[in-house]
Parts: sequence; C-alpha cells; structure tokens
Amino acid sequence: VISKLPQTGTTIFTVMSALAAELGAINLSQGFPDYNCAPELVELVNKAMQNGHNQYAPMPGLMALREQIAIKTEKLYGAVYNPDTEITVTAGGTQAVFTAISAVINPNDEVIIFEPAYDCYAPAIKLMGGVVKSLELDPPDYRIAWDMVKRLINGKTKMIILNSPHNPTATILRKEDIDELSALVKNQDILILSDEVYEHLIYDGETHHSMARYPELQQRSFIVSSFGKTFHATGWKMGYCLAPAYLMTEFRKIHQFLIFSVNAPMQHAIAEYLKDENTYLSLPDFFQQKRDYFREGLKNTRFQLLPCAGSYFQSVTYDAITDEKDSDYAIRLTKEIGVASIPVSAFYRKGTDKHVLRFCFAKRQETIDKAVDRLLKV
Amino acid sequence: VISKLPQTGTTIFTVMSALAAELGAINLSQGFPDYNCAPELVELVNKAMQNGHNQYAPMPGLMALREQIAIKTEKLYGAVYNPDTEITVTAGGTQAVFTAISAVINPNDEVIIFEPAYDCYAPAIKLMGGVVKSLELDPPDYRIAWDMVKRLINGKTKMIILNSPHNPTATILRKEDIDELSALVKNQDILILSDEVYEHLIYDGETHHSMARYPELQQRSFIVSSFGKTFHATGWKMGYCLAPAYLMTEFRKIHQFLIFSVNAPMQHAIAEYLKDENTYLSLPDFFQQKRDYFREGLKNTRFQLLPCAGSYFQSVTYDAITDEKDSDYAIRLTKEIGVASIPVSAFYRKGTDKHVLRFCFAKRQETIDKAVDRLLKV
Ligand SMILES: CSCCC(=O)C(=O)O
Ligand SMILES: CSCCC(=O)C(=O)O
Repeated sequence: VISKLPQTGTTIFTVMSALAAELGAINLSQGFPDYNCAPELVELVNKAMQNGHNQYAPMPGLMALREQIAIKTEKLYGAVYNPDTEITVTAGGTQAVFTAISAVINPNDEVIIFEPAYDCYAPAIKLMGGVVKSLELDPPDYRIAWDMVKRLINGKTKMIILNSPHNPTATILRKEDIDELSALVKNQDILILSDEVYEHLIYDGETHHSMARYPELQQRSFIVSSFGKTFHATGWKMGYCLAPAYLMTEFRKIHQFLIFSVNAPMQHAIAEYLKDENTYLSLPDFFQQKRDYFREGLKNTRFQLLPCAGSYFQSVTYDAITDEKDSDYAIRLTKEIGVASIPVSAFYRKGTDKHVLRFCFAKRQETIDKAVDRLLKV
Repeated sequence: VISKLPQTGTTIFTVMSALAAELGAINLSQGFPDYNCAPELVELVNKAMQNGHNQYAPMPGLMALREQIAIKTEKLYGAVYNPDTEITVTAGGTQAVFTAISAVINPNDEVIIFEPAYDCYAPAIKLMGGVVKSLELDPPDYRIAWDMVKRLINGKTKMIILNSPHNPTATILRKEDIDELSALVKNQDILILSDEVYEHLIYDGETHHSMARYPELQQRSFIVSSFGKTFHATGWKMGYCLAPAYLMTEFRKIHQFLIFSVNAPMQHAIAEYLKDENTYLSLPDFFQQKRDYFREGLKNTRFQLLPCAGSYFQSVTYDAITDEKDSDYAIRLTKEIGVASIPVSAFYRKGTDKHVLRFCFAKRQETIDKAVDRLLKV
C-alpha cells in the first residue's frame, strides 16, 4: 500500500523511552509522572466499576462530568459553555486535537503552526489534505513575531494552532500575544485550535491566557485539555474539548464515528473528583516546587537553563559542552550519563537544531536528585 | 464552517437510548449488557491502578497484552501474529475501524460495504475522500450474492468491509462465503477490513470464519475485535486490531497521532484476565442461553423471528401487526409498550425499510422476562 504519511517514523517519545528502558537510564524524556495519581481518584474508579458503570457512556461524555467541566471553566476563565452542546469528553488531548482538525480541515486549507510544535498537529492536517504553514521560533524565549504570522495569512488560511503552556518550550502566551492575535483574526474567517493540556501547570503567579477568557477568540476556538496531565494519570487517556456549538456539532460528527464514547468508569470518577477544586488549584504550587528544585540542581552543571513558565518541561542548551546535534547528544547522554531527554529538533519538521534538550521534571524528588547527580558529571 | 459530514445526525443508538431513558422503557436498543462485568476483572483494574500503572502505555499497547492476544489468535484460528509488529491495542472496535480506514483509503478509492451496515464505516470512508459502494442485502437470511459483489469491483476498488458475526442482522459468514470471497480477491489488489467484534458470540456450534483462518485473506486483512463485547464492559472502550506488518505499519502511523496510546490500567487487567481461556471460551454458551430464552419468549408474540447465528442481537419482522415504517414503529413501541429497539432501516444509507426491528438480548433474565411480557401485549 502507498503510505499516507510517508515521512512518519516512530515518535521520539517511543524511541527515547525505549532507549531509557533498555539502558536502565533515568527517563526524563517522555512527559509523564513517575509517582502515582491520588489514591482517592483510584478508589473512585474502583467504586464506579463496582457500581456497574462499565457500559457505554453517552457519546459526548457523561453529563455529570460535562457539568463539572463547565463549572471549572466558568470559575477559572469566566466562559459559559453549555454541557449539552459545547463540551465533549475525549480519550485524551491527542484524540481531541485529531478530531478537531478532522472536523474542519478540507483539502488545500492552510493551517498555521508554530515550531517547535507538538508532533501530532502536522500529520493530522496532512491526513485531511490540509497544508501546514509554519513559523519557526527561536530559543531562549521563543517569542511569536506576529507580523510574521500576518504574512502567512491569506484566503486559504483556515486555522491557527496555539499551545500554551507550551510543549516542548515551556513558554506561555502573554497578554500582548492575545492582543496581537485578536487584532489579526478580527473580521477574518480563521479558526483557532488551542492546545491547553497544561492549563494548570503555570508558575510564578502568571495567568493562563486560555482562549476561553476572550469572547472574540473563544467563539472561534476548539480548546483542548487533559485530565491525564491534571491528575497525574497520563495512561488513562482522558481529556476534553470545548467549542462553541457550531464547531462542536462538527467535532461530534467525527467523534461519534472515530471512537463513539470514552471510558465510562473513569468519567464517573473524574466527575466526582473535580467537585473539589483543590484537586487542580493545588497544581501550580506542586509543580513549581519541582521546577525550582530541578533548576536549582541544574545550576551547578555545565548546561544553560532556558526559561520555564509552564508545563512539566525544563529545556537546556549545552553549547559549553559540545557542538553535537541535539539528536545525537540526547542519545549519548542517555548511554554515557544515564539520563534520557528529548532533543527539541524532533519538534521541528525540518529538524532545525538549536542544541536544546528537554527534560521532564514531573518526577519524585529522589529521581530529580539522581538525575542531577548524573548531569553534574558532564 | 462547511460540514464535512453534512448527512450526519445523531446516531440511532443515542436517539433510542435517550428515548428509552426519558420514558423509562426497557432498553433493548443500543447493544450493551445490563449486568456487570466480572468482579475479578474489576479487581485486576483496581490492582493495576494501585500498583501505579497509570502512565502512558506503549503506543501499540502493553506487550503483555499483545502477547496474550497473539496466543488467543493462534489457539483459535491458527494464525501467527507478531506482537511487535502486527497487533495494536485500540480504544474499542470503532477506533480500530476508523484508524484502518484512515490508514489506507485515499481520495476516490472505492470501498465495498454490505447493507445493513454498522454505522461507522461509511462516514470514515467519506472523510478520507473514498467512495462507498454498497450492496443491499435482504431478510430473512441476508445472504451475499457474490456475483453481484464481483460486478462492483473495478480498478478503483481498494477494500471490502466484512462483519461477522454481523450487527445488526445476526448472520455469520459461512465457508461458502469464504470460498467465494477468496476466489474474488485472488490476484487482486484488494484489502479487507473484517469487523469481528462479536467473534466469541456465535451459536449452535458454528465456526467463526475469522479472516485469520485463511492465509490468502489474512495477509490482506485488518481484523478488529472488542474486549468490551467479550468481557461485558462496553464502556471501557478497549479493543484491538490485527494486521500483517505492511498494513500495521500504516495503521500505527495514524494511531500514534490519533490517540497515541490506550488506557494503561485496563490493558494490564485484560492481559492478566486473558490468561484464563475460559473467560472467552464460555461466551457462546452464556449468550446462546440468553438468545434461546428470548426467542422462546417471542414465539408467543405476533412478531416473526429472523434467524440469529451470532452477535447479541435478535431481529424480528412485524408484518402481521402493522405496515408502519420501522423507524416510526420502533418509537411507537417504546412509547406505548415500553420496549426500545433499533429500526434496521437506520443501517441502510438510503433508509431502505424492510420492517425489521433489532433487539439486544445481552440482558439479565428478569429484563428479558419483563420485555417479553410487554411485547406479548402487542
Ligand atoms: C503522548 S507521549 C508524549 C507525552 C508528551 O506529551 C511529551 O512527552 O511531550
Ligand atoms: C457504539 S454504540 C452502539 C452499540 C452497538 O454496537 C450497537 O448497538 O449496535
């Protein structure tokens, strides 16, 4: 058969996690916690299963969960979403992203992305016959030059994909970005897909500029979030999508034939767990402590720290150490030092190499200690 | 936005289940058990969560689970699938079907389906720009006239979609069908997508003619199965796809960007549970008893029973009662008698109405008793 995605190999996450496992290295590559999620949440799933909630959930998700999502969204961002028509529970953020792109991108539609970019956007666009237009951003601060974005826009531009807090760069959108973006799309027929899976992982008291806060942006946005990231259970593959009804109608047409519905007992559990807002309001402190601890440790190494405003990633450059390609150096570091990371060149379609490695700090203190000990040897 | 699936409304399952819930009717429409899955299986999920298996599973699925799937497939059908390259765990059968179609169907490719057909095939084909070619089958036995299939085949034919045991008609493929199919595709570049989610629900000692049994068919087939159906837990959304490596490579390219991976604790649990082959070998007896009990009850009603060789569905015609359209009659029956069913016209794209209603008998004996009592009043 002719491949529809001829360029696609195995993702860098699979490659680096497999290498780490093979070598017994500390795995700071793929983004996931190495501690367990809350026992209360586990017990809620167990109870839901015992209570027989093991058959199909409704196609758009359990109403009790959609209601909790609506409450949380209004409380945090002031936006009112109708659980009936504007909220859909998904099998993780990735499924939501894929479904949103599938729902609206037609052949030859152009989609603007910013690179480095999380690796699932471009393939979904291409699969739908869309054309990826990308703007490459540079370390250390990866600022978006909005005048450059403006130049990419034309009559075929259908969508802009944003991601804040950003994976892999750990940057966040600022109010200036929102103003520029708003000016750019005003009176234009351009949709937004906003990947906000790290919405609660934001540090130093900064504001998460969710698209949900800005009516002019909100009314043209698919907003994606992830319970896996929020509740330290990436393996549950639970997330959701918010969108105004005219977009959600199209989203659900795909969703119902792509997966039909999402894990029922876990929806019951999360609906209950969300009632205590502390379950997510505590996250910035929890992760900022980890970030600070990891950064403090790295200060005595020969790596240079890049800023980290959100997400669970800390990037470094290493120009004082070697001029190797980051893809080579990430592998060598795993083999020789025993710490696996992600080379950020993997997030540029052209493989643009800025000599940046990404480490995940969603780890126990002892794991961070051990990793830092090893990195000190470089 | 322009809809990519303009014909798509809410699925008949959602419509009928919602009506049943609203009216407090007995819901024999959407296919799911009204009893709980095994407590041992629930406890295995609980244990997996407590043991911390809550982070990303590997992209193609947990190796332990893929190995169990390989063992089961070889034992039942004699086919050897390599867990490394030929088995992928999916979020239910529907996700597997969607992914397989997405992986190989290009614009203008033709796909042959048989109607009545499960409702997720055609939209996935259309979304990929493919063209649906369908052959309508007729009650009572819905036999495939293979010479008619032959006439549908031309240079653009990319795939044939099969489904046995069949939803909604409860028919199964026979050895004669396999022979005809084999002759038809021999030396042709035609793929098969075989929806075998009811593989273990087959009655009267009949053989399930899985594509996995026939090397010439197997080497061109995506085979889809469902743990939801097999383990009475449709709400878990767990299934898998089998395919030779050259097809599975393409399948996984889509899978990794569509969902990345599937619920980890449930994969751990099912891997363990599958070790006892009785968990699935007991199914034909378990469901045949329900089928026989339901059929026995219906014999005293004014409905005419259609054959049921597999799946958890029993269809009836009702020409002795009314000449209403089945879509109208299904609603009236729900309202007036309090039993919800699925009108089989919903599974024909043209709405072809053969006056057939489908009932799900994957229900407790007392539910079947109550439903039969009500249907006796017609
Ligand atoms: C879906 S696996 C990758 C997890 C993740 O978000 C990351 O490491 O960037
Ligand atoms: C995915 S909801 C429908 C369940 C089912 O397979 C059916 O009722 O046919």
